[in-house]
Amino acid sequence: MINSANASGAATLWATYELTLIGPADGNPFQDIKLGATFSQGARKVQVSGFYDGDGNYKLRFLPDAMGAWTYQTSSNKAQLDGISGTFDVGPAKPDHHGPVRASNTHHFRYADGTRYTNIGTTAYVWNLQGDTLEEQTLATLADSPFTKIRMCVFPKHYRYNEVEPAIYPFKLLKQGDSRWRGSMAVQGWEFDFDTFEPAYFRHLEQRIHDLAAIGVEADLIIFHPYDRWGFAHMSADQDDNYLRYLITRLAAFPNVWWSMANEYDFMFDKTLDDWNRLIDIAAESDAHGHLLSVHNGFGTFDYSHPKLTHVSIQRPNTEHSMVWRAQFKKPVSLDEVCYEGDISEAWGNISGRELVHRFWKATVNGGYATHGETFYNDSETLWWAKGGSLIGESVARIAFLKRILEAGPDEGLDPIVSTGHYQIEIGGGLDHADLQKLMAPLPGEEAWSSVDMYFATAGQPHNYYLSYFGEHQPGEVQASVPPDERYSAILIDTWEMTETEIARDVERGQKLRFKAAPYQALLLRRSDG
Amino acid sequence: MINSANASGAATLWATYELTLIGPADGNPFQDIKLGATFSQGARKVQVSGFYDGDGNYKLRFLPDAMGAWTYQTSSNKAQLDGISGTFDVGPAKPDHHGPVRASNTHHFRYADGTRYTNIGTTAYVWNLQGDTLEEQTLATLADSPFTKIRMCVFPKHYRYNEVEPAIYPFKLLKQGDSRWRGSMAVQGWEFDFDTFEPAYFRHLEQRIHDLAAIGVEADLIIFHPYDRWGFAHMSADQDDNYLRYLITRLAAFPNVWWSMANEYDFMFDKTLDDWNRLIDIAAESDAHGHLLSVHNGFGTFDYSHPKLTHVSIQRPNTEHSMVWRAQFKKPVSLDEVCYEGDISEAWGNISGRELVHRFWKATVNGGYATHGETFYNDSETLWWAKGGSLIGESVARIAFLKRILEAGPDEGLDPIVSTGHYQIEIGGGLDHADLQKLMAPLPGEEAWSSVDMYFATAGQPHNYYLSYFGEHQPGEVQASVPPDERYSAILIDTWEMTETEIARDVERGQKLRFKAAPYQALLLRRSDG
Repeated sequence: MINSANASGAATLWATYELTLIGPADGNPFQDIKLGATFSQGARKVQVSGFYDGDGNYKLRFLPDAMGAWTYQTSSNKAQLDGISGTFDVGPAKPDHHGPVRASNTHHFRYADGTRYTNIGTTAYVWNLQGDTLEEQTLATLADSPFTKIRMCVFPKHYRYNEVEPAIYPFKLLKQGDSRWRGSMAVQGWEFDFDTFEPAYFRHLEQRIHDLAAIGVEADLIIFHPYDRWGFAHMSADQDDNYLRYLITRLAAFPNVWWSMANEYDFMFDKTLDDWNRLIDIAAESDAHGHLLSVHNGFGTFDYSHPKLTHVSIQRPNTEHSMVWRAQFKKPVSLDEVCYEGDISEAWGNISGRELVHRFWKATVNGGYATHGETFYNDSETLWWAKGGSLIGESVARIAFLKRILEAGPDEGLDPIVSTGHYQIEIGGGLDHADLQKLMAPLPGEEAWSSVDMYFATAGQPHNYYLSYFGEHQPGEVQASVPPDERYSAILIDTWEMTETEIARDVERGQKLRFKAAPYQALLLRRSDG
Repeated sequence: MINSANASGAATLWATYELTLIGPADGNPFQDIKLGATFSQGARKVQVSGFYDGDGNYKLRFLPDAMGAWTYQTSSNKAQLDGISGTFDVGPAKPDHHGPVRASNTHHFRYADGTRYTNIGTTAYVWNLQGDTLEEQTLATLADSPFTKIRMCVFPKHYRYNEVEPAIYPFKLLKQGDSRWRGSMAVQGWEFDFDTFEPAYFRHLEQRIHDLAAIGVEADLIIFHPYDRWGFAHMSADQDDNYLRYLITRLAAFPNVWWSMANEYDFMFDKTLDDWNRLIDIAAESDAHGHLLSVHNGFGTFDYSHPKLTHVSIQRPNTEHSMVWRAQFKKPVSLDEVCYEGDISEAWGNISGRELVHRFWKATVNGGYATHGETFYNDSETLWWAKGGSLIGESVARIAFLKRILEAGPDEGLDPIVSTGHYQIEIGGGLDHADLQKLMAPLPGEEAWSSVDMYFATAGQPHNYYLSYFGEHQPGEVQASVPPDERYSAILIDTWEMTETEIARDVERGQKLRFKAAPYQALLLRRSDG
């Protein structure tokens, strides 16, 4: 019998196109069988790998980035799977299908089709391992939220408030261990066959990523993390590589996946920097579709100038430093952990909603993007940050308000504009970061006295849009330092009360604006004579 | 006729003892006459300079630091003032006379007699040049306030909201100029004879410093500053030196004077670092009584490791860095400008009272001392920060609350104790600042991830007193990481509501404390089994 590929339905632009092949189920097909395919359109060729999905099923997935006729031809070390070919026609994208998110304009993001993407993320590390009832509640909460990204793990999580066992595991279970949190991240008696994947585990993950796509949410997928009782954080280098290739082969044709090589890579004490660099190379090579790729830190930030990393995915509470990281790495800056709104004892999980919103705004006016999380304790230990569920904090509505402002703002996104009251310049313009540092003359080892400390941080697009955030400052008067011979509307924004009030029209350079002093206000100067 | 010195009354310990001599009034006695005296008690000799006070009066001032008999003998280039001698007996200190404040225990302050001094300052740069009505109102406000120090200038101030002319000047006026604030610090047509002092100007300053002493307030006297329309910021090096010597000669025998060589030295563009070092040398040499001496910065901090500087008098909003500056300079850290509570447009003058109180607490639990200031606009432009008057802000009552807590705390003051939840160490103990920096692994040029960012900053005295401030964090539970086999009372402090609530007794290591989560709380663990 000659094998043939079974396609998953009519192909459309930016939708996962899947072929199923039937092959051997004996031995260990995960390790023994090599399968790949070349997808071609005219002179263009895209190489993808295939994977074993259990029960004799082999799959090839492809994410078409151009309409029209494509052909494919498989290759395999198993004759049965080798040399299979076919053609298919890719139709127009369905509504809301925009392709993967890419870095754009150095410090921002866009979907592959050019549509603007506003990076307003949240965090629920293992929401996808909580059973259907809670998982569906999480999806409903997300659908109703401002969030366009969720940080989530492939592996289950072991930590305080994280004692629930998943129903299945990514690898074949050999021996059950202990589920209790004992304040340690040692392996607690569990044993797995790391050479044998559990396809059902990955199929469930894929279903949830697909569910996220349907509500416009990107999955910032954490591939490794230290919070482990099963041994997944302590596999050999070969096992790590093998797992990474399998995961990427399965998921690279999903439009809404980002690769986060690790959460808190520096707390995975088994791995060296060489290991991380090797894993980054494998991820970049294995992904035919070029998804976003970064590494998230605990204390010590990764060197985001690594050429294969697409963006900065940093953990830091001082979100006003976005400007510094932008200048240092020349990539988009995503502040992916800035502490969570909540009331638990852990310091990273108990800032007020007001403080979290404050950190979002500081990130915004310094050209970065902050990420949300929520850690209010409840008796079932269903904390959003780990398990999803519902959101009860005060920050979400304010983050939605910020998102509406961003979406009504310049399509290019907001870039920091250094304003000292005496002069106003773009970073990279008349005064670069090194000059600025020199001007501010910090002590060795001390942070620069950045504009947000000494003055009001402003971001926008020159000659068009200036958004200044006053934070803990409460000026009752400011002087508009817009360019000469231009006119602006002045809108006072209360970031907490969520109000926007036009306080003046036809504002010109040097004009004084007076308003009611209060903390956590912002001022938008929007060009009105254009 | 043989001259003789006229004493100012019965001498007591730590009170200014003044001798008046009659001498020539012709020529320019300020420049022409040299006068000094040696005060002796047994083998001990103290050299002091004298000064011309106008109208043929010459003065010698001495601050006795020991009781009993003292003798003096003058020397002068004028025979009439030379070789005059006498004896006097120093009686016990009057109530509340404790002598000058000194650095003590590396990072704190004490009066010369060993009494504890709590450095809780405010700022009213030229309150002493506002006429008696307002000046007396300022003194009444201070008497009713928590403040133990006021930052104030010798010279008048030119700035926005500072257009009032003083009634007299420190030098002989030659030509009147313009008083209006035009957004510049150029000399506005004024001319003075910088070789001829106006003694009445200095006598008034002395009267106000004396008034401060009577209400227990130290005068942190700013000798030079850039905010000038008269030319006092642009004298020659000789004129600067001459002025500095005259000032110190007049004031060094006052108990409650601190020398602040400049406010924002780095904004005085005429002067070089060599100039500042020369002025520091002169101040240290001229002051027989060893008052506190520092230099205050604008942007670029002075190198406080300079051996003649007694403490760090820094301007920075990030008061949590006190710990870093302590470790770097090994001196007391006074955060003498951290932005002011107010509503003016200038960013340094419009933080909320809540933010100012927050900065005070961050300074405190990182082992530093913050300084207050208030800049609410009013139609008479009587802003406390410049002119004194009354205080209307929300921070003062909370600063008084903090002061009461400090005064009820350890007599040695509070030193930072690094607590990460896993371990608890003293800075300078098991883990020094370099180790800590390494552990935290900041990027080059980036600030360390300090304990206050990642965890709760704690200060106190080991085995006795642990004060942790949660700031924007709002834990509902913490674990006591006190040493083993000790017991503590746990007191929850609301820094804004000004409440102290005992939430547990006999607390032991590892015990969980649960309480109502709210931002801006602190937790005091006070030894109860000692």
